[in-house]
Amino acid sequence: MKVCVLLAVLAILLPTASLLPERSNFGQKGKTEASAQAAITAVLTEQQSAWNRGDVDAFMKGYWDSPDLTFAGSSGITRGFKPVLEHYRRNYPNQAAMGHLDFSQLEIHQLGNDAALVLGRWHLNRDSGGIGGIFTLIFQRFPDGWKIVHDHTSLDPKKP
Amino acid sequence: MKVCVLLAVLAILLPTASLLPERSNFGQKGKTEASAQAAITAVLTEQQSAWNRGDVDAFMKGYWDSPDLTFAGSSGITRGFKPVLEHYRRNYPNQAAMGHLDFSQLEIHQLGNDAALVLGRWHLNRDSGGIGGIFTLIFQRFPDGWKIVHDHTSLDPKKP
Repeated sequence: MKVCVLLAVLAILLPTASLLPERSNFGQKGKTEASAQAAITAVLTEQQSAWNRGDVDAFMKGYWDSPDLTFAGSSGITRGFKPVLEHYRRNYPNQAAMGHLDFSQLEIHQLGNDAALVLGRWHLNRDSGGIGGIFTLIFQRFPDGWKIVHDHTSLDPKKP
Repeated sequence: MKVCVLLAVLAILLPTASLLPERSNFGQKGKTEASAQAAITAVLTEQQSAWNRGDVDAFMKGYWDSPDLTFAGSSGITRGFKPVLEHYRRNYPNQAAMGHLDFSQLEIHQLGNDAALVLGRWHLNRDSGGIGGIFTLIFQRFPDGWKIVHDHTSLDPKKP
């Protein structure tokens, strides 16, 4: 009977421990786990490089390929991966219009295990004049990595 | 021994079942659970009423009271509950400036168990002319309810 009780106690404890969440972010903008932070930073770095070689398709790989992707910009809300891609193609038809993109002041905040909030600044350096602003990105973790599921990008009202 | 095995099996199954998350939102902008949806909608409805009776302090109760609250607006990123409150007080010094606030086209997407993304439109009806735009809100669940931990609000570029 002693063995039986020990077995039962172990059986209670083992699955309980393995099912507890690794970390709790309850009630706070949590610090991002290092691997998520690195993966999200890599997505943004790859987006920057893709943009700077004029490759909008590769840039779009940072976004969730879904009709539920949302992009809030100066022309309102664009819904769906394809319309967002077309929006970029329309507004940035060639490499001169695309210019050189830099992200800066990135802040990554974990929201539970599979979502993160990213704040930052963007700047486009172009012969026709620089533009920039701030963005809010919502990332979610998918089987093939972290993807942007919502992007709210705004333009600075006054350029220096 | 039969009882012992049964005990062990039950002990394995019971805590496992109770610890499994109620729903998984892995890899999608999940549908919000009904209670979270109702709670978040109530926060926004209360914010609207507070604004429309000129009560900025009550309006601010929808926000996380923390130095880590962030607000991305036309003047860049404001950080902290007190600076956000001061920003509202400065930009909307009286009820005429505050006008009548309406939120519309609200979309609530769950991000894990304790966070949600809210998209919507805002409109201020004022004697001096209406203004409006879109917003992205990140809500997190706290012991005292759902609070906005990040707000990105933009103004429509062209008024009709």
